[in-house]
Parts: sequence; C-alpha cells; structure tokens
Amino acid sequence: MADILIQGVSVLTMEGSEDIIENGDILIKGDRIAALGPYGSVSTEEQAKRVIDGSGKIAMPGFVNCHTHAAMTMLRSYADDMPLMEWLSEKIWPVEDKLEPEDIYWGTMLCCLEMIKSGTTTFADMYFIMDQVALAVEKSGLRACLSRGLIGNGPNAGLALEENINFFKEWNDGAGGRIKVMFGPHAPYTCPPEYLKQVIELAGKYGAGLHIHVAETKSEVEQINASYGRTPVGHLDSVGLFELPVLAAHCVHLDNADIEILARNNVGVAHCPESNMKLASGAAPVAGLLEAGVCVGLGTDGAASNNNLDMLEEMRSAAMLQKVNTGDPTVMPAFTALRTATANGARVLGLAGEIGMLKTGMKADLILINKHRPHFCPQHNLIANLVYAGHSTDVDTVIVDGKILMENRRVLTIDEEEVMREAQIRADRLVG
Amino acid sequence: MADILIQGVSVLTMEGSEDIIENGDILIKGDRIAALGPYGSVSTEEQAKRVIDGSGKIAMPGFVNCHTHAAMTMLRSYADDMPLMEWLSEKIWPVEDKLEPEDIYWGTMLCCLEMIKSGTTTFADMYFIMDQVALAVEKSGLRACLSRGLIGNGPNAGLALEENINFFKEWNDGAGGRIKVMFGPHAPYTCPPEYLKQVIELAGKYGAGLHIHVAETKSEVEQINASYGRTPVGHLDSVGLFELPVLAAHCVHLDNADIEILARNNVGVAHCPESNMKLASGAAPVAGLLEAGVCVGLGTDGAASNNNLDMLEEMRSAAMLQKVNTGDPTVMPAFTALRTATANGARVLGLAGEIGMLKTGMKADLILINKHRPHFCPQHNLIANLVYAGHSTDVDTVIVDGKILMENRRVLTIDEEEVMREAQIRADRLVG
Ligand SMILES: [Zn+2]
Ligand SMILES: [Zn+2]
Repeated sequence: MADILIQGVSVLTMEGSEDIIENGDILIKGDRIAALGPYGSVSTEEQAKRVIDGSGKIAMPGFVNCHTHAAMTMLRSYADDMPLMEWLSEKIWPVEDKLEPEDIYWGTMLCCLEMIKSGTTTFADMYFIMDQVALAVEKSGLRACLSRGLIGNGPNAGLALEENINFFKEWNDGAGGRIKVMFGPHAPYTCPPEYLKQVIELAGKYGAGLHIHVAETKSEVEQINASYGRTPVGHLDSVGLFELPVLAAHCVHLDNADIEILARNNVGVAHCPESNMKLASGAAPVAGLLEAGVCVGLGTDGAASNNNLDMLEEMRSAAMLQKVNTGDPTVMPAFTALRTATANGARVLGLAGEIGMLKTGMKADLILINKHRPHFCPQHNLIANLVYAGHSTDVDTVIVDGKILMENRRVLTIDEEEVMREAQIRADRLVG
Repeated sequence: MADILIQGVSVLTMEGSEDIIENGDILIKGDRIAALGPYGSVSTEEQAKRVIDGSGKIAMPGFVNCHTHAAMTMLRSYADDMPLMEWLSEKIWPVEDKLEPEDIYWGTMLCCLEMIKSGTTTFADMYFIMDQVALAVEKSGLRACLSRGLIGNGPNAGLALEENINFFKEWNDGAGGRIKVMFGPHAPYTCPPEYLKQVIELAGKYGAGLHIHVAETKSEVEQINASYGRTPVGHLDSVGLFELPVLAAHCVHLDNADIEILARNNVGVAHCPESNMKLASGAAPVAGLLEAGVCVGLGTDGAASNNNLDMLEEMRSAAMLQKVNTGDPTVMPAFTALRTATANGARVLGLAGEIGMLKTGMKADLILINKHRPHFCPQHNLIANLVYAGHSTDVDTVIVDGKILMENRRVLTIDEEEVMREAQIRADRLVG
C-alpha cells in the first residue's frame, strides 16, 4: 500500500526540460516516489493512506540550499551594513566565542523552521559543535550535508579535525540516512597547504567530500597570490584538493583558467548572490561557469549576512544579478535559475541520483506551491511566474524522505512558538 | 469620536530618525492621524469606533511605488529573458495594440489587489485609457498619481495630449482627493523638443507635475547625444523641463553634471532596481544621488518586467544592488532603503506633507506588519529584520485615507476571485 497520493497537481519534474505535467499525480511509497504521471495514470493502481488534493498547486523538488551556517540564524540582523573584516572581528567572532551547545541547537532549529516554511528540503552546513546541528536536522526532518568548519591556522586546528572525524563516525548516514557528513576546511586563507593535505588524506580515507569557501573576496585573491603566486582555485588545485568531491562556496573572483580547473574536476559551486551583494563581495561569473559546464547550485549563506534563508528569493536575485552584471537580459533565464536551486544543487552535494528531480525511484523530497494567488496571475508562463513573481510563503506543503514536514503552512515536526522563544532568550544572553 | 485606535504596536514613524515607539498607540479620525504616542497616551482621550490590537506588529507608512504601469500586470510573465527592443517590438507592443478599456480596468485591478496585499498605499502610474485606471483606483481605495503616457513622435501625439488634459480636468483631485493627475511625456527619445515644450506649457497652465522616463539605457544616452549633443538630463534641462515638478523614472546612466542638475532642480527620482536588473539596463548611482541631495524614491516598474509589485522586495534589492555595484557594504544601509520606499517616495510624488510618515495631522495611510514570524527572529534590530529578512506577505492590515483596505490579509475593497478570473479571461484573449 502506498503512503501518499498527490492528485491533480501541476508537476515540474526538473528532469531537464521545461515541460510541465499540467494535471498530474504523484505516488509516494515509504521514502521514495513510486510513480508519477498524468491524472489517473497512477492513482488507480492502488489506494494510498493519504490523498492530497493538488489542484491549484505546483509540485516540484524541494529547494537545495548548498551553503549556509545554520546556527548563525541566531545572529540575524545583529550587525549589518558594515565592512566585512570589521563585521567579523568586532561583531560576529566575539559573539561566536560565547556560543554554547544549546545555542547551536536552537539557532539551527530556527534555521530549519524557516527553511521548511520557505520550501527548502536539503541544506549544506559548515559550523562547529556539529552534533547539535545533527540533532536539529534529525528532529526537523530535513536532509543535510554537514561539515565541521576547520580553521587550520588557529589554535584548535588539530582538535577541530579530530571533531570532524568523530562527527563523521557518529553521524554519517545518520537520521535515517538523511545526514551526510563532509569535511569542512574553511578557506584557502585559513588553511595552510600542509593542513589541507592532512584534511584531504583523512576525507579520502573516510570517503567524504569537502566543503570549502573559495575566492569570495578580492582581498582573498590578493592574499593567496602574495603567499603562493596563484589564484585561490589554482592554489587549491596544486594542493590536490580537487581530487576529492568538492563543494566550493562563493567562487566570485575567478579567471578563465580557474573556471577550466573547476569544470575539469567536476567541482560543485555554491553561488550565494545575496550574501555577495550585501557584503559587496562581487558578482560570481555564473553565466561563464554554466557555459563551461561547471555545475552551479545556490546557497543563502548564513542569515547573519543575507538575512533570510529564502531560496526562492535567492534564485530570483541570482538571475537578476547575472543579467545586470553581464549587461545581457538573456543570460540565466528563469528555467536555468530554477535548476540551480533544485537539480543542480543536488548534483553539487553529490546527491544527484537521489534528490533534485521528481522521478520514479528517487527520494520523495518535494514541495507544493499554491499558485492561486494574485501575483501568479495571469498564468502566461508558470516557470517565469514562479521564479520572477513567486513568494516563498506560497509554499504550502513540504515532504522530505516521504514524510510530511509542513501541511497548509503548519510545520508538523517543530514547535514554532517554542523555537522562537528559545532563540530569543539565547540571543538576548549572547549580545547582552 | 475617533474612528480607529491601533493599540500596543511598534511604530516606525519614518520622521527622520530610526527611533521606534516600542509600544505605541495611533488614533485615526476621518482620513487623518489624530494622535500618536506611547501606549495609553492617546487612548484615554476618547473612545474609538474600532480598536485594533497592534501587539506583535509593526505600524509604518504604507509603501509608495513611484513608477509603474499598472495595467501591464496583464502581461506578467508573458515574455521574459529577452533583449529590450525585441521584447517591446515583438511581444509587448503587439499585445498593447489589442488592449480594450476593460482590459485596462481589470489589469489595473489585479495590480491594485497585489499592491494592497504587499503593503503599497500609493502608486505613480503612466499608461493610456487612464479613466479606466482611475476607476480601478477609486474602487480599490488606493492613492495614486496618474499620467497619460505621451509619445510625441507617433501618430497620436496630439490626441494623447488632449486626452491628458481631459483626464486632468475630470480626475485631478478625484476619488475623494486620492487621485492626482500628472502629465506623462514618455521619454526624451520619444518626445521631440517642440512637443516637450508644448507639454511643459500645458502642465504649467494646469499646475500639474510631469512623469517621464529618463536615462534608462545606454542606447538612450547614445541616441540623445547623437541628436542633441547632450545627455538625456542635460537635454531635458535645456528644454526647460525641470522648471516644473518632475518625477524622473530610472536615471540609470548619469554623469556628475546630470546629478548636479537633478539636485539643483529638486527633481524626484524613481529608482527601479529590479526592472533595471532584469532588463540588464544597469545600476543607477543611488548612493551618489543621495549624497548630492537628490530625493530618490523606489518603483517596481510594470509587472511585465519585474515581475511582481512587491515594494518590500524592491527596497531589499535596491540596497543589495547598490552595495555590490559600489563595492561598499556600508552604502544604502537598511534605514536609508526604508526611507526610499516611504518618506522619500512621498516627496518624489509631491505629497511630502500628506503621506510617507506617521505624524499627527498627516493622512492615515499606514500598514501593520506581523513580526511574530521565524524570519523576524531573533529581534536584534527591527529595521534590519524588516528590510533584509521580511516578506511582503507579513503585511497584515492596510489603511489608506483612514479606510481599512485589508485586514488579516483579507482585502475588503476588491473581490479577489473576481479579479483573478477576469484578468485570466482577458489575458487568454490578448495572447490567444
Ligand atoms: Zn559561508
Ligand atoms: Zn516605465
């Protein structure tokens, strides 16, 4: 017997074409999509425990947020409109020093709550005290790729690496298989080559991927060039980093040789347009990356620099930033933007066979979006309406691993009031 | 007896400082704010007919959308990701040729519905068959500055000008004083100098302001330079346009002399960041304009090129675009962005004494925003949360001219289902 049947819904499979199944059915059995097709084609086979009326709604893969620091949601709007280094050293780092395990848990819970309410089903995280992040992921029902941030030039370099190993042993494939653990060398400018080599060796031994910040700012490019005579990407390539699966966040400042290295090594890029805009880091050459065959996903970065976790808004910003930055309104059209937020994101996280598309046999990670809204009217083009006019609050239902996490905008796995209360108490203590 | 008392609300007056009345009361009598102050300070004076509980909410001036083409909401997502001239000549203009008066009415109603639902209380419009636009404004309860778009180099140049005059006579100060009529010379490249002089003379005679597109694209700058040896702003100055109150939309491509001309003549600028990004027109020098003392408001432009009418999103995009374009994260901080969307917008439309701030004696045009939301948590900084994390769907209540247009997200002046149905029928006919 099937578990969930969604009936009469507009299905965006994201399998590669813009085709929409206008009036489709989706059958879910356990954690996977059992069947999918036009109305009536799958519903007669067998009865489902739950039938969801999909009329007036869009069904699509949940958003994949490829780069964030979930617990930093605790620092949302704590400090804004400041130069990057001043913001970090005077505001962010002093508060981060005070973070207790419970702060990490509730900060991540707040993040998970907002992500569910805006249609994200999978996220990639880099932070510390990661067992608390894993507990929040387990509780929320989301899927996540988690890494311990590793600062190789600080006093805790060795300890952090040990923590990443222990975290891998304890949590990889945890939460019913929803958690994948990666190693998190923070950035080329915080991890010396010898340390990076250590991380590469260990990650390789455990069969884990790497999550790293790359070429986020101009000053990083200058610093790496001064130290190693190479670009950040060139430097990481020379160290051997790209021999493993790598999730490279930002990649704002690249030259053509960098793009070629990323393409040749199948490096996944997490493009974070709103963080890059708000911190004035620059505009990543996404059109060039895509043209070169690099897989580009989207990330919100932490809520301290965004300041929300809204992937629908992020893909709109990605498209608009790319157009104005290249001076070409045809680059990054709506469907391409939608792919970066879904199917590409899945590939970037090494989950291409499992999530990011609606397809028989893949994980049942999907969202329903209410399109019976003034801003979706008239319906000339559903994809353009979704990307250029939609709101994340139009997301009505969220399903991950075949489980309903939100229905009619009510989150079922998290006590919304409790999370907001706990987060506020802790935020007050941290900045008090 | 007062009409409405809003109690226990966080008041953002936008009077000039970031100060918030944390627990405030607002008293409305007729169409104006009768009193405003800390909790209890205004409520004891007299009883009000309606008491609204403002706890957990922000009260602020409604958003002022300084540039749009409301009826074009009918063409939302009809054509996207195309070069500007191809988009206009192959897609937009052919459909506009088919527009009937009723299409204009229902397209504008759809626009008004979306604006109310996203917290806009006043908008500036330029289009044609403007009596239909005025009827929709009257019905919706919104406030508007309306102008007939005047193409001076086309076959209807004279007729359009006559229509603008008649429209002024019939509708200026119409809808209970909520409608102000302006003259709408379309742009320097569509209005020859002699025609502009005619428009200036007539507008001056009637005491009306002007609404015009200026320096939107690089090709406009090149064209005006080739024809007149001046920049668009320099050319309009030489024609005498700035002797009248002018609302100049876009102003993307300006040099320092242009900025000086705009400042000296108190020209109001309607900055449209999302339209400029999506059409790849460029990034207006807003930081430079503000520094020079030019009043900059915000506009969404038409929904055919945005594709929504969401002013909260527009101010976020404005701040982010300005930061990334200047490479300076400190420019256009949250409060400045909020001012462009409210108080500045009012000044740009010549309504500074009436709207754009919450102040005793001013028009009761205000919105209540629900801040009891995960993305508003924690509350380190209310203004940063609003600008960088808020959603327009957080707008709960909309009041214009002392009348409640929306309460608990239910629009009271417009039948939402009827508007969506009528818009879809007409959209299908137009593109069918
Ligand atoms: Zn990051
Ligand atoms: Zn316009």
